[in-house]
Amino acid sequence: MAESVAGPTTGTGDEQPPVEGHEATILLERARAEVDPVLRAAIGSLPGPLRGIARYHFGWENADGTPATGGSGKAIRPALVLAAAAALGGPAARATAVRAAAAVELVHNFTLLHDDVMDRDTTRRHRPTAWTVFGDADAILAGDALHALALRLLAEDTHPSAPAAVARLADCVVELCAGQQVDTAMEGRAPGEVTLDETLSMAEAKTGALLGCACALGALYADAGAADVEALGAFGREAGLAFQLIDDVIGIWGDPRRTGKPAGADLAARKKSLPVVAALTSGTPEASELAVLYAAPHAEEDLEHIALTVERAGGRDWAQAQAADRMARVMQELARAVPDPEAAGGLLALAEFVTRRTT
Amino acid sequence: MAESVAGPTTGTGDEQPPVEGHEATILLERARAEVDPVLRAAIGSLPGPLRGIARYHFGWENADGTPATGGSGKAIRPALVLAAAAALGGPAARATAVRAAAAVELVHNFTLLHDDVMDRDTTRRHRPTAWTVFGDADAILAGDALHALALRLLAEDTHPSAPAAVARLADCVVELCAGQQVDTAMEGRAPGEVTLDETLSMAEAKTGALLGCACALGALYADAGAADVEALGAFGREAGLAFQLIDDVIGIWGDPRRTGKPAGADLAARKKSLPVVAALTSGTPEASELAVLYAAPHAEEDLEHIALTVERAGGRDWAQAQAADRMARVMQELARAVPDPEAAGGLLALAEFVTRRTT
Repeated sequence: MAESVAGPTTGTGDEQPPVEGHEATILLERARAEVDPVLRAAIGSLPGPLRGIARYHFGWENADGTPATGGSGKAIRPALVLAAAAALGGPAARATAVRAAAAVELVHNFTLLHDDVMDRDTTRRHRPTAWTVFGDADAILAGDALHALALRLLAEDTHPSAPAAVARLADCVVELCAGQQVDTAMEGRAPGEVTLDETLSMAEAKTGALLGCACALGALYADAGAADVEALGAFGREAGLAFQLIDDVIGIWGDPRRTGKPAGADLAARKKSLPVVAALTSGTPEASELAVLYAAPHAEEDLEHIALTVERAGGRDWAQAQAADRMARVMQELARAVPDPEAAGGLLALAEFVTRRTT
Repeated sequence: MAESVAGPTTGTGDEQPPVEGHEATILLERARAEVDPVLRAAIGSLPGPLRGIARYHFGWENADGTPATGGSGKAIRPALVLAAAAALGGPAARATAVRAAAAVELVHNFTLLHDDVMDRDTTRRHRPTAWTVFGDADAILAGDALHALALRLLAEDTHPSAPAAVARLADCVVELCAGQQVDTAMEGRAPGEVTLDETLSMAEAKTGALLGCACALGALYADAGAADVEALGAFGREAGLAFQLIDDVIGIWGDPRRTGKPAGADLAARKKSLPVVAALTSGTPEASELAVLYAAPHAEEDLEHIALTVERAGGRDWAQAQAADRMARVMQELARAVPDPEAAGGLLALAEFVTRRTT
């Protein structure tokens, strides 16, 4: 297993002194610490029952309203907003972008609430999903409320880029919905009917869009020109695809004690994740075997065998190599957009993190 | 049955010449004609499958993508945006507010898509609801996309009030969600446990909020001061409550050929609508009878008898009197906020319409 932290640091690009190693972890923890008060204030403004559902989802409260110490996720998206702002505008821009970082995190969590309802996923971040606790209607409504809160947070911001940021984030939501729509539609299709290209497009819409938007919003808050906003958006989008490739690997081979999701849940649900579709379309003898296994109804005892078949068909290696290739390319692109390695350091560390993480 | 159009006209308050009678109908048709191109362009920007679901929901297409001639609703909310802008800013302000009117209509339709999923309602505007045709996931995602489109439309507007309008519309969405949350939670409670006050509060959040927001947005686009924005918001909110009171009456006693919903559907679903809760809490002998009927499982043949029991317990008269009282009060308030009767005419006609309509 790879380390769950980034490799050698190349500088933080913000007001903190450079740190040795673990840079991504520090950036993520710092983003979480800065964004959480904004998130808590926004969610505190919700009417009672919606507030409780949202606090449960974020891991701050139990279903009965007592305090909980669950995790709220890795804060990769807020960290990207802040790192992008820092890369192009230094510490001052970074400081103005905290609200945008919170807005992106709210959108991410709105989509998680809704996706869990649609996918009937029962566990997230080591806890029962909101719909299993509060019912479908409450989970859908809490998601809708977080969506509205996200855009309200940005709209109320006095930063001159706020209107452009609202429009971009709303546009991103449409793409996230389109990605999830393709994803759920794919689940109903036979394993042999799904191509790798359309699975990659789906992953780009479902995950790449929001990581790209996070970086673009950071650039907007640094008052960057259109070319730089697009360059950072493209960087984040590719990093998002790498993130999803690794996420799908973790979804099959990850340690459930660390991922917070049951072992093999993606395989049990017959999800057509990237390593699975790569395996199915590999032309190997194992591809045919996998197609038969995947067409059969769910049986718990098959999961290890299915995982092994995906691996033997090359699905795991393909996903890891794809993620590494994409990251190498986007890092070169980033070096052109942000030539100062110290300024680009935070983004590089986060991008490297997403391809090395194990949870 | 009352007329489905408004009473004597008091002037349109915009660039069209004043018309005799039927003024509300004309305002509604005009709002629909002006807003539809903006709606169609916004929805045309959605990725393929989401576009088709949205077009189906709006009655523009059949499920197979062939053109349809279904209705898109009465356009009360867009008409209120435009009438409020005209009342405070004349024809010029009205012309700038078309995009805001479309945004409000998109939010309304996003909530319809989601509410139909949660309430398991199977018919809307004479057609099967989107979730019955495309499934829950597609209906939820299409709703999410319309929500994002609404806020993007406003955020991309160059009007100086656009950021305030985005924040206000997003805030309104949170209130709509809270109202729907209370509504769905109420469905799970025994008939005797629900008070009239909380049902009125729920209706204010679920319906009053968006009609109030529509009027407030019109005022914002007329560059009105804060006091006028709040006054028009309060007017629309009360008009919304009157609208919901009449909507609930129509939901029980309306003609299904005109409403587009099955006869007695609200009673069949045991909805705790305003006339029902008024009847249940009336202290009459029929109240006790109704509580027993409502606690029993659904039986089609009971629906007429239940409707009669609600009526005998005074639920229908109470709802109509409440609606009329509220409208009389808000019309006085409007006369103070917009003293020129010609300028206020459009809003008055629309407000009167909502208490006289039968569909």
